[in-house]
Amino acid sequence: MKIALIQINPIIGDFHGNADIIRRQALAAKEMGAQLAIFPELALCGYPPLDYLEHPSFVAGQNSCLEGLLGDIRGIAILCGMITLCPSKHGKPLHNTALLFRDGEILHASHKKLLPTYDVFDESRYFQPGTSSQFFCLDGLNLGITICEDLFNDIDAFPEQLYDIDPVAELNGQHDLDLLINIAASPFTMGKQHMRHKAFSAIGRKYGVPLLYCNQVGGQDSILFDGASFVVNAEGGLCAQATSFSEDILFIDSEALTPITASPAHEIAAVHDALVMGTRDYVRKCGFAKVLVGLSGGIDSALTCALACAALGPENVMGVGLPSPYSSQGSIADAQQLAANLGIRFELLPITTIFDSVKQSLAPLFAGYQEDVTEQNIQARIRGVLLMALANKYRALLLTTGNKSELAVGYCTLYGDMSGALAVISDVPKMLVYDLARYINRDKEIIPATTISKPPSAELAPNQKDQDDLPPYEILDPILAAYLEKHKPIPDIIAEGFDEAVVRDVVRRIKINEYKRKQAAMGLKVTSKAFGFGRRYPTAERFMD
Amino acid sequence: MKIALIQINPIIGDFHGNADIIRRQALAAKEMGAQLAIFPELALCGYPPLDYLEHPSFVAGQNSCLEGLLGDIRGIAILCGMITLCPSKHGKPLHNTALLFRDGEILHASHKKLLPTYDVFDESRYFQPGTSSQFFCLDGLNLGITICEDLFNDIDAFPEQLYDIDPVAELNGQHDLDLLINIAASPFTMGKQHMRHKAFSAIGRKYGVPLLYCNQVGGQDSILFDGASFVVNAEGGLCAQATSFSEDILFIDSEALTPITASPAHEIAAVHDALVMGTRDYVRKCGFAKVLVGLSGGIDSALTCALACAALGPENVMGVGLPSPYSSQGSIADAQQLAANLGIRFELLPITTIFDSVKQSLAPLFAGYQEDVTEQNIQARIRGVLLMALANKYRALLLTTGNKSELAVGYCTLYGDMSGALAVISDVPKMLVYDLARYINRDKEIIPATTISKPPSAELAPNQKDQDDLPPYEILDPILAAYLEKHKPIPDIIAEGFDEAVVRDVVRRIKINEYKRKQAAMGLKVTSKAFGFGRRYPTAERFMD
Repeated sequence: MKIALIQINPIIGDFHGNADIIRRQALAAKEMGAQLAIFPELALCGYPPLDYLEHPSFVAGQNSCLEGLLGDIRGIAILCGMITLCPSKHGKPLHNTALLFRDGEILHASHKKLLPTYDVFDESRYFQPGTSSQFFCLDGLNLGITICEDLFNDIDAFPEQLYDIDPVAELNGQHDLDLLINIAASPFTMGKQHMRHKAFSAIGRKYGVPLLYCNQVGGQDSILFDGASFVVNAEGGLCAQATSFSEDILFIDSEALTPITASPAHEIAAVHDALVMGTRDYVRKCGFAKVLVGLSGGIDSALTCALACAALGPENVMGVGLPSPYSSQGSIADAQQLAANLGIRFELLPITTIFDSVKQSLAPLFAGYQEDVTEQNIQARIRGVLLMALANKYRALLLTTGNKSELAVGYCTLYGDMSGALAVISDVPKMLVYDLARYINRDKEIIPATTISKPPSAELAPNQKDQDDLPPYEILDPILAAYLEKHKPIPDIIAEGFDEAVVRDVVRRIKINEYKRKQAAMGLKVTSKAFGFGRRYPTAERFMD
Repeated sequence: MKIALIQINPIIGDFHGNADIIRRQALAAKEMGAQLAIFPELALCGYPPLDYLEHPSFVAGQNSCLEGLLGDIRGIAILCGMITLCPSKHGKPLHNTALLFRDGEILHASHKKLLPTYDVFDESRYFQPGTSSQFFCLDGLNLGITICEDLFNDIDAFPEQLYDIDPVAELNGQHDLDLLINIAASPFTMGKQHMRHKAFSAIGRKYGVPLLYCNQVGGQDSILFDGASFVVNAEGGLCAQATSFSEDILFIDSEALTPITASPAHEIAAVHDALVMGTRDYVRKCGFAKVLVGLSGGIDSALTCALACAALGPENVMGVGLPSPYSSQGSIADAQQLAANLGIRFELLPITTIFDSVKQSLAPLFAGYQEDVTEQNIQARIRGVLLMALANKYRALLLTTGNKSELAVGYCTLYGDMSGALAVISDVPKMLVYDLARYINRDKEIIPATTISKPPSAELAPNQKDQDDLPPYEILDPILAAYLEKHKPIPDIIAEGFDEAVVRDVVRRIKINEYKRKQAAMGLKVTSKAFGFGRRYPTAERFMD
């Protein structure tokens, strides 16, 4: 059977727009001779629709577009992800469904059985799980149809089983399958593509059945779907591979699946491309074209600005330098050089006069108090006022530039440098910031060498350096990864060779700064655990380990 | 059997502190002659611990305190909520458990079967549901032990069944129960106490069994547990009622449950008390004593300030007036009068000089652009800079003062008046703001009459009034309630008699301002659907109904 796996980039709730893409791509696949076109999980409504799933009008809106699709697409079978109403009177009212239809007729519906409810996923909040795994025979081929997580409970392929059942084992136990199909909305995180290849290849080999994996692509707020759909044959060999981070079609013949050699993805390049896609999709799906970045001359704002240019084009990016009395001449020069290298508009807006005015107003109320972090925060917040004023006036989105390491320990100012619509690199630890900067400079110097080589500084006080307040990033970053991503207890982290006082201080800082992150701008997720929606902690609490 | 229902106010992760309270109260109950002391759901670790449940050290910390409790409390049986490890290799690793123990011995464990996964609840994210409902015979009495949601799927008592099973029916089908016990961490929302009384009374009557309901009390971030534990007899008559919004003990004899007459709760008073408790608990559990409120002379900041005084004492509250060129003399006088009535420190900090300085800095970049909302936002953001500077310097928390109606339609400035640690009234619609102000003034004028009677205004432009931009609150508030709380489709709201253009514009404003709410301060929840953690919507989306 000739099959097209079509990884599309839907917009949540844009039923007409999504249906148009599905219609156009399905008919293109038919022209190419495909008998079956496969689209990702919830492709018709976009994933994740979150609490819109509780609105009857959302379901109705999707279904009225489905009616159109059923009528319009003739001569090719379509397997497409969408929400369907659950007929039961008890439990959640919806299923997450893979619907198979052709020539106006619904042939088969497979409901997702394993509902991820961890990290950024809340599927048990919305969906009733499917109860039976039924293969479907299409034109003589027995298809086992699964949805994303349904594939992730194989006892041999995964170290832990989050669910009591394995839908793949049930499908294969029923009948000889000719093809195992998985439609997905599986987010990118570092290392995930390798994990998918390894696991799905093992599953294909285990059951001796070719596996067709069709994944959504595109940024949906903080979640970055990488696409990278692929096909393995019954021996587990990779036979087709779609692009990452852009729409693509894989066209295959299920009778002739021959292995290809694919070069393994370059992880730094993948993170770069993920952030570029995420920035582009967030800005455009919100209806904006232009962005603004405050440029300090430091590496975080330089990286953010370079990513924004790759996403939107330099004509849509404006850099603003906002020097304070503590900004060095070198920093201003570095910011100007970066803007010149990228070819973007750059403006200088010194904050000293306003800073003086604010200090003067507060002087009577600050009498008798020492200078402290307050005066540093004031500078950062004045920058926030000016950048937001420019964003408002120019109808641009302000990008915020903080990295994951500083957000973790609270080395940032709420309503100051944390201001902005999107935190492009807030899930990128500082050491990875350097890797990405070097990757961007791989062919020619875009981010000035001095920006990369100088010691990091917030420049909010005389001769300030990050390393006066924080452990070196070579030490901080692995402690953060152990605590934030792996939830390792403090003694286990110390046992890895880190100083106890440093580890305890880092964990303390993570905790006492939870309140800042609760009001942080949305960030793009590239690690297994990002701050934001998928990481949920109380603020008023006393747990100290 | 003599039984004490003990509604406590635990702190999340403060295992030693929580265990101390449990130990002290259990021994006090024993002194009073109780054979059984009942504590709320997850009383030992606090509810909701959220992602701390994924930390092995959190579970270990709780369990080491449990060891102490088991050894220390003698001569009385304890039923207490806590997390326990689930022995199964598959599925989630924890149960939400009611543990019965006495004299160092664990007698029985009931695991929660119905795991709420909607609104602010994410229990399927963490817990494996219990599978069997087993009664336990304690000193000759058959106890049916349930946890919170387990009681909420009765087919007669509730209009819809969210789950496939009913643990109460299962328990009663097994054996004649002598007592049905429910330990809970059930948040307050308006009307909830009435709903609980009606439903639990019906359940007691249906099965002819007394029902003992023990609920947590206290604020945990945005969630306000009201306590209000109570007991109904086998005929469904109310026989004992604990206080709302404060720790309390209900002491009962299960052999002698005679009905009492309780006056129905006054809903406005309940909301008032909930907000006072929530403010006090958030500030204190975060380790702070003092708060700061920007006082505009308007009703929102006046109400917030009065609630803060009730929560923390006027000596811990400071008011700051920050007049701009557009502030009226009346507004400044109203703010001063409020501060005098409350007996708090009040300072005036005019923003005109700073505003001029900011406008001057931006003038070259704003050349050729019209004045617009940008200049209004600048004023609000300068106030944010000054208030946060005072909060930083004085080690106080800034309370933000916006109400639910304005947060819904985005009539507020991110990083401006939205700045602050806690949004005391962000779940209070404007009409309810007036009700609360009148309630606070019930005995004497605290909030100046002119503050209540004048038309609401942001005073960010000459002669500005809320009603120039927004529908009257008498119209706006019911539209918001229909859309936000009931998820009514637009045509249904119009059918209730509202103007179509107004309804569509309100819904449009709700949607395009989602990005502001994503960065809003945590607010105290008093309605069935508050902005924040329990309401989850995408930002980049196109759903228009």
